[in-house]
Amino acid sequence: MAEAEIRSIAFPSDKLEGLYAPITYGMQAGGKRLRPTLLLMAADAFGGDASKALKAAAGIEMFHNFTLLHDDVMDKSDLRRGRATVHAKWDANTAILSGDTMLTLATMLVAQVDDSILREVLDTFNTQALRVYEGQRLDMDFESMETVDLDEYLEMIKCKTGALLGASAKIGALIGGASHEDAERMYEFGLMLGVAFQIEDDYLDTFGNADTFGKPIGGDINNNKKTFLMVKGLAAADANSSALRAALSMPAGPTKVKTVTRIYEMMDMPAVSKAEVAAYSSKALSAVKATSLSDDKREIFRKLIDKLIGRSK
Amino acid sequence: MAEAEIRSIAFPSDKLEGLYAPITYGMQAGGKRLRPTLLLMAADAFGGDASKALKAAAGIEMFHNFTLLHDDVMDKSDLRRGRATVHAKWDANTAILSGDTMLTLATMLVAQVDDSILREVLDTFNTQALRVYEGQRLDMDFESMETVDLDEYLEMIKCKTGALLGASAKIGALIGGASHEDAERMYEFGLMLGVAFQIEDDYLDTFGNADTFGKPIGGDINNNKKTFLMVKGLAAADANSSALRAALSMPAGPTKVKTVTRIYEMMDMPAVSKAEVAAYSSKALSAVKATSLSDDKREIFRKLIDKLIGRSK
Repeated sequence: MAEAEIRSIAFPSDKLEGLYAPITYGMQAGGKRLRPTLLLMAADAFGGDASKALKAAAGIEMFHNFTLLHDDVMDKSDLRRGRATVHAKWDANTAILSGDTMLTLATMLVAQVDDSILREVLDTFNTQALRVYEGQRLDMDFESMETVDLDEYLEMIKCKTGALLGASAKIGALIGGASHEDAERMYEFGLMLGVAFQIEDDYLDTFGNADTFGKPIGGDINNNKKTFLMVKGLAAADANSSALRAALSMPAGPTKVKTVTRIYEMMDMPAVSKAEVAAYSSKALSAVKATSLSDDKREIFRKLIDKLIGRSK
Repeated sequence: MAEAEIRSIAFPSDKLEGLYAPITYGMQAGGKRLRPTLLLMAADAFGGDASKALKAAAGIEMFHNFTLLHDDVMDKSDLRRGRATVHAKWDANTAILSGDTMLTLATMLVAQVDDSILREVLDTFNTQALRVYEGQRLDMDFESMETVDLDEYLEMIKCKTGALLGASAKIGALIGGASHEDAERMYEFGLMLGVAFQIEDDYLDTFGNADTFGKPIGGDINNNKKTFLMVKGLAAADANSSALRAALSMPAGPTKVKTVTRIYEMMDMPAVSKAEVAAYSSKALSAVKATSLSDDKREIFRKLIDKLIGRSK
């Protein structure tokens, strides 16, 4: 349902190919469509007419894809989901300008809700958008930092991944007619789901299966990325942690990936990561349980967690 | 009044220097503050409490400065108003991300209006923001085009310069309590004022005084920029126009500037430009005259035109 809406977004002009074609291209890259799906699920769960949530769902996905366009320029990434990124296919200026356009289009789509909730929906969207930029800034700042502590890491992923999932769940709930309190709990659900999801993503980047994960394994290790594994590993302050510190200064390549992976195994990182993912999944579920939703509605969100988490199995 | 508001904008976090310091830096560059001034003037003229328009005025200026941050990245410009641009002082990634943040902050500021006009104000802001991006895209496309006709040129400057001035006047009018019809006429005023202003800017880039213009004279000629002078000159299809075409292929430098300027003089371009500026100023004034504003209120806008246009005198 979200997919059809996303693919039918109309632009103000069918001329200006250079502005709008990259947007269509970016939006058609596919992906999990997790954010619009969550928004529609929340609207439906609270008894709302999910068709009234379609524009906002498309807007949230448009926002997410805007951040991808700009992130790819900042990271100089030429590939995403197996296709050339917008800045690689066109150029950086096109990615910047079409990205800006997507942010305004996203805001216009998200604003297509009833007047009675317009201000709260917009406030949620804009406030969480700021959190996403803050997360990206933190992530960029981490690159030049020697070490990052666990709190800093968690703050970064809450912003970069959790905030928009939280906004999706909350906006969906508001459209569905949820009370202000229930909408806040759904925000908490999305936020914690995002944290669980990101820690699992960090785990899979080292311990996942390249075929199901969709990216080459070991990329984070080669890039010395401040992941959950690295942050947690360096904080241990033991022999393994010293070995890890030494291994991180190795040149990128399969030997480095193998060495660091081995150290993580000795540190029991697969179990440590899974425990952390389970803890945040549980926090997400508790948030849903605190709402006024009936058991069978809550079950839908529990299933969503199960589907998203444990992708490694 | 707008200046104090602009300088007192609060950010969600006093940490994250890397995200918010470039915004403060960009906003403190000064400039004419034309857009917020116009917004406040319109709010006041229609009898509104101008203090209720301050946030929206700051938001419009924030939006304008966001476009400058991103334009400077796209144009690789290192200087603006005599200071290093954000991407030169920090880096391109900082300018992209802080610019994104400014767009969201701008939307949040513009949304700080009464519920009764929130939707119309937001629609105006977002729709005209899209026009600004379209204008920037057209301007970029013009760079690789051999010739641009007058209609294409006018469409570009309506989007790139006129749309936001139109939005400023219209949003101010709405906050001031103007009818929908009067608000539209004020949009027309801002749009036409913007066109007049841009044509005059093009004229001054060749025929102005470097001290009062604030930029070196002849920059447009050296960059083969599709200005009003060039578009109009190439359209003439006479001996001068052929000479102009030849002169445009000269290498950049004082000789090129002198040669092209001479040809423009032979084509009577100073008078042609001034006539066009006068025609659009007159359209702007007609739009104000079509509103229900009293004569003394209209006079304020006539004076604004006089102040802005004829900067060369």
